[in-house]
Amino acid sequence: MQISGASYIAGQWCIAEGANKFFGFSPKLNQPLSSPIYEATEQMLGQAVSAAEQAFIDYRQTSPAERATFLYAIADEIEALGEQLLEVTHQETNLPFARLQGERGRTINQLRAFAQSLEQCKNGLLDLDIEDAADAHRTPQAKPHTHLSYLPVGVVAVFGASNFPYAFSTLGGDTAAALAAGCPVVMKSHTAHPATSELMTRAIDKAIVKTGMPKGVFSMIQAKGYGISHQLVAADSIKAVGFTGSFGVAQKLMDTIAKRKEVIPFYGELGSTNPQVVFAQKAAQHGKELAQALCQSMLMGNGQFCTSPGLWLVPSDAHELIEESIEQLSKSTSDTLLSPNIVTSFKQGIDVFKHTQGVSLLAQGKLEQDFHANAHLFCTDAATYMENSQLHEEVFGPAVMMVKYDDSQQLKQLIDSLEGQLTASIHGSNEDFAKNAQIIEALQYKVGRLIENQMPTGVEVCASMNHGGPFPSSTDVRSTSVGLNAMLRFLRPICRQRPQ
Amino acid sequence: MQISGASYIAGQWCIAEGANKFFGFSPKLNQPLSSPIYEATEQMLGQAVSAAEQAFIDYRQTSPAERATFLYAIADEIEALGEQLLEVTHQETNLPFARLQGERGRTINQLRAFAQSLEQCKNGLLDLDIEDAADAHRTPQAKPHTHLSYLPVGVVAVFGASNFPYAFSTLGGDTAAALAAGCPVVMKSHTAHPATSELMTRAIDKAIVKTGMPKGVFSMIQAKGYGISHQLVAADSIKAVGFTGSFGVAQKLMDTIAKRKEVIPFYGELGSTNPQVVFAQKAAQHGKELAQALCQSMLMGNGQFCTSPGLWLVPSDAHELIEESIEQLSKSTSDTLLSPNIVTSFKQGIDVFKHTQGVSLLAQGKLEQDFHANAHLFCTDAATYMENSQLHEEVFGPAVMMVKYDDSQQLKQLIDSLEGQLTASIHGSNEDFAKNAQIIEALQYKVGRLIENQMPTGVEVCASMNHGGPFPSSTDVRSTSVGLNAMLRFLRPICRQRPQ
Repeated sequence: MQISGASYIAGQWCIAEGANKFFGFSPKLNQPLSSPIYEATEQMLGQAVSAAEQAFIDYRQTSPAERATFLYAIADEIEALGEQLLEVTHQETNLPFARLQGERGRTINQLRAFAQSLEQCKNGLLDLDIEDAADAHRTPQAKPHTHLSYLPVGVVAVFGASNFPYAFSTLGGDTAAALAAGCPVVMKSHTAHPATSELMTRAIDKAIVKTGMPKGVFSMIQAKGYGISHQLVAADSIKAVGFTGSFGVAQKLMDTIAKRKEVIPFYGELGSTNPQVVFAQKAAQHGKELAQALCQSMLMGNGQFCTSPGLWLVPSDAHELIEESIEQLSKSTSDTLLSPNIVTSFKQGIDVFKHTQGVSLLAQGKLEQDFHANAHLFCTDAATYMENSQLHEEVFGPAVMMVKYDDSQQLKQLIDSLEGQLTASIHGSNEDFAKNAQIIEALQYKVGRLIENQMPTGVEVCASMNHGGPFPSSTDVRSTSVGLNAMLRFLRPICRQRPQ
Repeated sequence: MQISGASYIAGQWCIAEGANKFFGFSPKLNQPLSSPIYEATEQMLGQAVSAAEQAFIDYRQTSPAERATFLYAIADEIEALGEQLLEVTHQETNLPFARLQGERGRTINQLRAFAQSLEQCKNGLLDLDIEDAADAHRTPQAKPHTHLSYLPVGVVAVFGASNFPYAFSTLGGDTAAALAAGCPVVMKSHTAHPATSELMTRAIDKAIVKTGMPKGVFSMIQAKGYGISHQLVAADSIKAVGFTGSFGVAQKLMDTIAKRKEVIPFYGELGSTNPQVVFAQKAAQHGKELAQALCQSMLMGNGQFCTSPGLWLVPSDAHELIEESIEQLSKSTSDTLLSPNIVTSFKQGIDVFKHTQGVSLLAQGKLEQDFHANAHLFCTDAATYMENSQLHEEVFGPAVMMVKYDDSQQLKQLIDSLEGQLTASIHGSNEDFAKNAQIIEALQYKVGRLIENQMPTGVEVCASMNHGGPFPSSTDVRSTSVGLNAMLRFLRPICRQRPQ
């Protein structure tokens, strides 16, 4: 399939004259792909943003049923891309086909779930509306009729994630939630999968035409330089930003946002080590199976899930768990990561762990290619972990920091020393949980999702899910990026009042 | 009643050795009051914040019923302050006794409303919890049990407002919502009513002792310098800020917050001109009554309500409305404003209007004292209003900018030129509304509350209220400061997951 490398600005595929080129990358071959991608210009971004602002006037007036039809059409058009989509993404990411199929399914279902919710709501979006009846006879003053409902916030900027090229990217969660809420989207494509973005954009283009939506409701920007990202979040018409990526990039975007006159929400999903707290009885009775499950979870996508279990807090005497983990990870084989930058960061992170006094490398998988990442199992004691802030950092990829604790008191100190996390799991028997109730109470305040005896990877898409967490795992602990409540990111209340 | 001038730090009344003094002010006598107030030190603020952080560990574990008991006790203790409270506040604000009685009642009812809600919720705070049942038989993977509920965010900083010394100050909406949610509060008292803050703090001190709440759950800081306010919002333990005040002060606090490592929400309620849109038929048929109602609403509290109608958009030929407004405001008498600073700002604002070419002063009330503020009715045409951004600024006090429009098209342009507002009213017949449907549709996106044929002053405290609006009327359009949903400012979701 031919990739044009163009950006999509309000219904038009555009390449500026003399545009800078960049290239996608094949992690498998460790070399750039051959189709050039053309960097969008500032002017093109300006057009996308003002077309979106214009489109908002019509799009906000569509009924929930009309937006549902639009979302169903997008889902159908993604399906219609067929195997070509998977092939292109596989080339750009080297993620296995089964994984990509699963993620595509999830992305389609996500769009359909928002559509269904829009169709079914009786009482406004998400059924959140509230009405209070008037009372003309109330003294000393008559009570008015008031009705609380929700309006879309305006144009939303979305930054795609590298690690979920479908579910958290071009037509992923933030885009689906914004479109469902009634907000146009200006999407900054991720440079790790520009061709995938182009195909996804072809799908939404067809859906826009088919359902007669305003052209400016979606634009997709290809760019490698950071300038255009900053221009996007600084634009007056942008009323919210969805972002998944690194702390460093997020911090710079937030600095730009802080200079705006109008404050806007920045929904950044950053890093998380997803602590796995193993209690004594569980370790003693099920150490081996637990080690297997933890290793399997950590190796999923070669450690590139945002909920990958990267920090394990285990009793000092959990010999079986430790031995089995060493065995599992030693025999694991290396694999690619999503981009050369991620490989570089992974190696740097591993080096920091290796060179921290008091940290030992217990096991590593076989490194089959220089540009691969292999599993690393590090181990340290509680004091070393608490004294060294660099050990708290996420190493994106297949790395585990195992911290041994001697007793409940030390475990409590470890928990208190944690930064905010997307998730944590507690692995224990009922007796373990009862004994450690205060530790579990404290752990809640560090996470967005607290999991009993299950792995953190695999985020259930349902109404009661929360994907987000205290800073720095996300920049707005009040909201989720997964599930129907994600629409709340892009809605705001309005009260309509009348005398009767 | 003796005023100590002390700050209240985690159960102790404190005055630092050699503390700087400042004084309250009598607007009526236009001179400082005699009781000194002692500026809190940085060290005292540090103690308040760390006591609050400590208190959070216990306070977050109180049951909703226990917090309800605490809020009822605070309400009772405010009542027990009796007439002395009203006298002290009258001295500090010169607000009439009837107004202060009403506001005190509202403040007490607000605390009781949160308490009732905590008692009645069956399904978590605000009944927002969601559960999804497990399904062990789902393929390809078993579905876990997930439960979405809410946790308090942590310690909240609250800045009191000058214009509502009870309802939006020491024990006002933000404090009540935070305490209801399970968050300790560090309160920066407003310098316009320090003695009122002290009395209110005595009430909550008694309630803390009576219900056995942790000492650090509430502290109150007296300070005139801005340094301590910045120290407060910069403190690591502060997880959210509630603020009512000027754009300038809010901007500086937001700059400090932007420099924090951890991003936190800043809920600022700033300024609003609360546009009153008068349609043609209404102006023709009911111009005189409407003018009377508008003037009366604008003169409430001498124009110092946050929802005071300061901008009127009227048909150019609304002669009756204009004549009656001139008559009403010409015969109005001047009154004090809340502080000398506010008088100065009012006079500066009036001067800006007076000296803008194309603006005429149609009427003014009698100025009975130099330090009073008298009503001012300005008038201009649509073009002048749209070309001069200074005319869009709120003049806090009894000032009205009346803008005449020639036709619907011009009115639409005026609406499009507006900044974000807390409220707007539309005054019209059903025919007016039908004819101007697109204008009304656009107006929604400028406001937090849209009112048909009623005045904006007087905010109903009920579940369907929204008090907040697009920037710059507030800094977070997603939330309300009035009504039970205000608790959402200080809560965040958490998902608890288990296999069965």
